[in-house]
Amino acid sequence: MDIEQANLTAVERMMESHPVLVGVGKALDVIPGMREDLLLHAGPPITWERASGPMRGAITGALIFEGKAKNEAEAQKLIESGEIALEPCHHHNAVGPMAGLTSASMQVYIIEDKKFGHNTFSNLNEGYGKVLRYGAYSEEVINRLTWMNDTMAPLLRDAIEASGGIDMKALISEQLHMGDEAHNRNKAGSILFLKALAPHIARVAKDGATAGDVLQAIGDNALAVLNPVMAACKAMAIAAHGIEGSTIVSTMARNGTDFGIRVSGLGDQWFTGPVGNPKGLYFPGYTAEDGSGDIGDSTITETIGIGGFAMATAPAIVTFVSGTPKDAMNATLEMYEINYTEHKYFTMPALDFRGTPTGIDIRKVVETGITPRVNTGIAHKDAGVGQIGAGLVRPPMSIFEEALVAYAEKYGF
Amino acid sequence: MDIEQANLTAVERMMESHPVLVGVGKALDVIPGMREDLLLHAGPPITWERASGPMRGAITGALIFEGKAKNEAEAQKLIESGEIALEPCHHHNAVGPMAGLTSASMQVYIIEDKKFGHNTFSNLNEGYGKVLRYGAYSEEVINRLTWMNDTMAPLLRDAIEASGGIDMKALISEQLHMGDEAHNRNKAGSILFLKALAPHIARVAKDGATAGDVLQAIGDNALAVLNPVMAACKAMAIAAHGIEGSTIVSTMARNGTDFGIRVSGLGDQWFTGPVGNPKGLYFPGYTAEDGSGDIGDSTITETIGIGGFAMATAPAIVTFVSGTPKDAMNATLEMYEINYTEHKYFTMPALDFRGTPTGIDIRKVVETGITPRVNTGIAHKDAGVGQIGAGLVRPPMSIFEEALVAYAEKYGF
Repeated sequence: MDIEQANLTAVERMMESHPVLVGVGKALDVIPGMREDLLLHAGPPITWERASGPMRGAITGALIFEGKAKNEAEAQKLIESGEIALEPCHHHNAVGPMAGLTSASMQVYIIEDKKFGHNTFSNLNEGYGKVLRYGAYSEEVINRLTWMNDTMAPLLRDAIEASGGIDMKALISEQLHMGDEAHNRNKAGSILFLKALAPHIARVAKDGATAGDVLQAIGDNALAVLNPVMAACKAMAIAAHGIEGSTIVSTMARNGTDFGIRVSGLGDQWFTGPVGNPKGLYFPGYTAEDGSGDIGDSTITETIGIGGFAMATAPAIVTFVSGTPKDAMNATLEMYEINYTEHKYFTMPALDFRGTPTGIDIRKVVETGITPRVNTGIAHKDAGVGQIGAGLVRPPMSIFEEALVAYAEKYGF
Repeated sequence: MDIEQANLTAVERMMESHPVLVGVGKALDVIPGMREDLLLHAGPPITWERASGPMRGAITGALIFEGKAKNEAEAQKLIESGEIALEPCHHHNAVGPMAGLTSASMQVYIIEDKKFGHNTFSNLNEGYGKVLRYGAYSEEVINRLTWMNDTMAPLLRDAIEASGGIDMKALISEQLHMGDEAHNRNKAGSILFLKALAPHIARVAKDGATAGDVLQAIGDNALAVLNPVMAACKAMAIAAHGIEGSTIVSTMARNGTDFGIRVSGLGDQWFTGPVGNPKGLYFPGYTAEDGSGDIGDSTITETIGIGGFAMATAPAIVTFVSGTPKDAMNATLEMYEINYTEHKYFTMPALDFRGTPTGIDIRKVVETGITPRVNTGIAHKDAGVGQIGAGLVRPPMSIFEEALVAYAEKYGF
């Protein structure tokens, strides 16, 4: 068993993956294994009983959206009776920010890995304020989802098709030179996305008013590109997964209760532990007391070397997640300690175009005692409220230790 | 005579100026003093005899565009006979990149200073390749100008009006947090500009195809916003001009032959000296031998504290203008030596959100022996060719010395 060779193969495949946004389609039609009676959620597997407030809120909202429940009590009944199943997005090559709820009728982005051939998926980004992904499910949330599904998604689908596809790897590479770390800060990426789509949206829209509304919705949302970026990262992570003998992390995700990782050489087994509470900046009127535990699949960005790992290229982000530009620089420098390599294609001008730290090695995490740094939004702990801040968080060390034990058992070291 | 008070007033007015892009109009109708028989050009005053290759090429192109000449010989005859006059853009509250040619029929951006009330102007940006501003005047150049004038400009006008105006001060402030120094690198600014206009363009366009073409033209041009940025800077510079006793530079501009400055407390007198040859990176097939002398009004960016002065916030620019990210950092640090203050609103995350060096003081330039650093494009020395590179250049020290002598004479120091 040559671990170094296995890890080299894993990170090379991660970096050579070439995700392109090729379309938009209905989850039921395009996501493998999707069913009418299934909801996909962020993080490792979860039950209603153990689900956090925002996760319960988002499940409720998704069932209201599907016309299957009217309130949280009905949602609970459907889930607990087993009539509606819950499964991780990650079990279906999908990812979703925060609660990550994706139901059968929802329109999702379709990414194709042009190098390795697999597809990945993510739901559409709702913007700010009261949104499903943070556990809000009021009428305005559902109306917004309906407009996105019925009006925005078909136009995006046609525009993406007319564009011939949007090269997400090139987009991420470019936004990293424009002050984004591509997780919490996707300001440049979102307008690069707008730039790529705008002419096609104008040309294929049935009228100028619809085109204008969709261009406005994308332009007003500095996280518009987060979801396709995440799906692109998922494609890169899949490319690195399942390499016999590799100690590289191929999934990091949180469901609001558990932080879970999977390791390339350890198949589909999750290693989970309790989520932390993010440290960061809270919106006026809220404090750390109000915050839910860490939640979301968006740690797929750090998994492939961007997000919190690329903080050095995004000094302006500290106004959003707290800290100073020097802290941001140090965050990246620290991450080199636990990653296998420096990214070939994702570089940071401020560090003399050095590649981002890429490929978390569970051996290095355990050896150094340094866990990955993750940027994140902060949800209110109660269902139905929404986002109350943004900050930084780390996974528990125990899950890396358990993974290393499992690795030793499997490979006999 | 309290010089410190005068300079404080000048830089405060520079920083409090609030330029907003309010419209697009025909130069003849909107630029004060514009006439049918007048061409505006970059830099201090110039004659045909002393004009550089790219300036002659651009004059020729503007006269072809106006239907007044067919070739360079006819253009020369018109200018030398005095039938067509040449005057600096700066004498008409206008600015233009590179040759800066602006003729009576051309559509121009209209900026209004919401704080001080004055208007400024700039022509539209043509994009890359063979373009008038670099002295090219072939049929494709003229056809492009015609499309811009007849199709793009009216749609931009309607979209800008529908938007209620674009706050250029906020836009510049934002792009400085996204890796632009807002002179040679306007990548983020141009897509922020697109973002602000896209929904309105889609809504007011007569059809989706036209909207698509204009959105494509803006999106494909990473310098699309340079011209309105320059006009915004001109508004800030005007606000700082004419303060009795001030030693702050209120204009820096080059015509390809002379580098000229004007000083706030010295009225409209130009101090000129020979332009340098930019040091930088050349496109494949060209060398420094092929380069024209420094040209353009775009040094209005450095005049008000951005561009070459804000290099520290734009490390990725070194791939375009040469050098290393450390050189970029040092460029900004050096400029603090000769500037009066740090900008209140234009900040740089990488320098812990320190304000950009703002308000060049001719006393400090002469005392320290440090001249301003200017980012620039490089034109081919012959008429009709175009851009061949980009780099860095400095004005001659002599013009600051002459200005200081003139100041001493006027104020009796």
